[in-house]
Amino acid sequence: MKVAVLGCGLIGVSWTALFLVHGHDVAVWDPSPTARDGVADRIALPMAQLVELGLGKGRSRGRLISCAEPEEAAQGVDLVQENAPENVPLKRALYTRVDAAAPVDAIIASSTSSLVWSDLAVGMTHPQRFVTAHPFNPPHLMPLVEIFGRDPATVSRAEAFYQDLGRRTVRLRRDAVGHIANRLSSALWREAVNIVADGIADVAEVDAALVHGPGLRWSVVGAHMAYHLGGGPGGMAHYLSHLGPSQERRWSTLGKPVLTPEVCDLLIAGVEAEAAGRSVAELEAERDAGLIATIKARDIS
Amino acid sequence: MKVAVLGCGLIGVSWTALFLVHGHDVAVWDPSPTARDGVADRIALPMAQLVELGLGKGRSRGRLISCAEPEEAAQGVDLVQENAPENVPLKRALYTRVDAAAPVDAIIASSTSSLVWSDLAVGMTHPQRFVTAHPFNPPHLMPLVEIFGRDPATVSRAEAFYQDLGRRTVRLRRDAVGHIANRLSSALWREAVNIVADGIADVAEVDAALVHGPGLRWSVVGAHMAYHLGGGPGGMAHYLSHLGPSQERRWSTLGKPVLTPEVCDLLIAGVEAEAAGRSVAELEAERDAGLIATIKARDIS
Repeated sequence: MKVAVLGCGLIGVSWTALFLVHGHDVAVWDPSPTARDGVADRIALPMAQLVELGLGKGRSRGRLISCAEPEEAAQGVDLVQENAPENVPLKRALYTRVDAAAPVDAIIASSTSSLVWSDLAVGMTHPQRFVTAHPFNPPHLMPLVEIFGRDPATVSRAEAFYQDLGRRTVRLRRDAVGHIANRLSSALWREAVNIVADGIADVAEVDAALVHGPGLRWSVVGAHMAYHLGGGPGGMAHYLSHLGPSQERRWSTLGKPVLTPEVCDLLIAGVEAEAAGRSVAELEAERDAGLIATIKARDIS
Repeated sequence: MKVAVLGCGLIGVSWTALFLVHGHDVAVWDPSPTARDGVADRIALPMAQLVELGLGKGRSRGRLISCAEPEEAAQGVDLVQENAPENVPLKRALYTRVDAAAPVDAIIASSTSSLVWSDLAVGMTHPQRFVTAHPFNPPHLMPLVEIFGRDPATVSRAEAFYQDLGRRTVRLRRDAVGHIANRLSSALWREAVNIVADGIADVAEVDAALVHGPGLRWSVVGAHMAYHLGGGPGGMAHYLSHLGPSQERRWSTLGKPVLTPEVCDLLIAGVEAEAAGRSVAELEAERDAGLIATIKARDIS
């Protein structure tokens, strides 16, 4: 297969490594020649990590092709993965260009995290072939891809494409800002900020509680299923009838923090204490090692 | 060491297995003779799982002692772990009994998930030795123990005790309903319910997105640290100045679901579809296998 990657930032590079390891030829484009010419070097680490995970085993690597224009990248592709900045007019203009250049049955997929299908598809000649396909950072390691589109056949084809890359696809019934994962992340972080702002615990303690408690459990069992198990043999029905009212009371007491300068200072000082001198690059390397160990152990990718 | 376990439900049995594997003698008491006499059989599975995790290696097992009265269980102990129902007068009455019977330097720890230190300590002769020490279900597998107490020396002793059991302790600055972990869980579940109630996605898709996305990442990197990494080389300060306002807007759009009969029906039918015929016991066994594989791979217990 041939895939076009439009936008060669962190997410575009991550997708490129994943596609190449699975044997797809990848035509990359970015308005910055430096960015697109740097892809060859920047894919080295993610490709090595993917090989460590055993992805693409037995497949020969695809070819990396650098293109000066998006139309050139879209020639003869099966799928376009767009990773441009989160700006509706900019993305729409790009779709107009590739919509005309790509084969009529090619899927056009957006990695957008904060924009929605209905806003992005406006003006497309073939909106039925457009989907949002949102990965979770770091995209080459995280199995999740959240998909929404209006044409069920296109959505099914997109799901099959990403599943072949070892991804776990999730289908939305309707488009929503933040899809599922970022809505859940935002809701949790609001309370995580509140706990710090309200003096209940420090940043590092909140993070440690999450990693060794709910986070660890949510890497195995979803939030709904956890309450089903919490209900004992009667499951979710028993849980809701016995503890539903107390959950609603708990919801009403959750915080509504504001990111005032004081709260921001607490958060910044708190993560600095948690980082304990480790740079962002060192912390990312530790994160990747932890993710790789977990994914290998659980065989979830 | 000798430990008393008061209340032999799921949590009491889980603690008992953990204490025994680490070589502590455990005196168990429950108002129900059937419950306390059943402990010997019910600890078999959690003890086998703890051995699989390599916990307590090189230590000889402690002795299990069944007691007819809480005062008897508290004789000569180093720590009392109370797991009675979540009822303030009931717990206070129990503390009065063991406060008089336990050695004066013994720690009295409550597993309470929804009550707070300030309410529970009322009336104790020695409140300085009282802490809340909340585990996360299933308690013998999950590393987290959230601790709050008013006497720093007692809190430090309690931390050392649980850390010796391979636990990851987290210290609260002040007591709060739901400590940290259940507040975060409640906040996330509110949005997880909203996504279903609002027709964005089904229960099974929400759970799959969490498990393969934020849950997996939160098992490695906390929520605050994730935004620090999301800020690139500038870290949390850069993230807050650039994306803080959009997070505040996102917070204002998160749902405020109500557990109406219709929403409850959606949740119950949704987890039934997700369970796909698996019983709660089968689902628990799968959860435990996933947790054990993850904990072994990451060496986090």
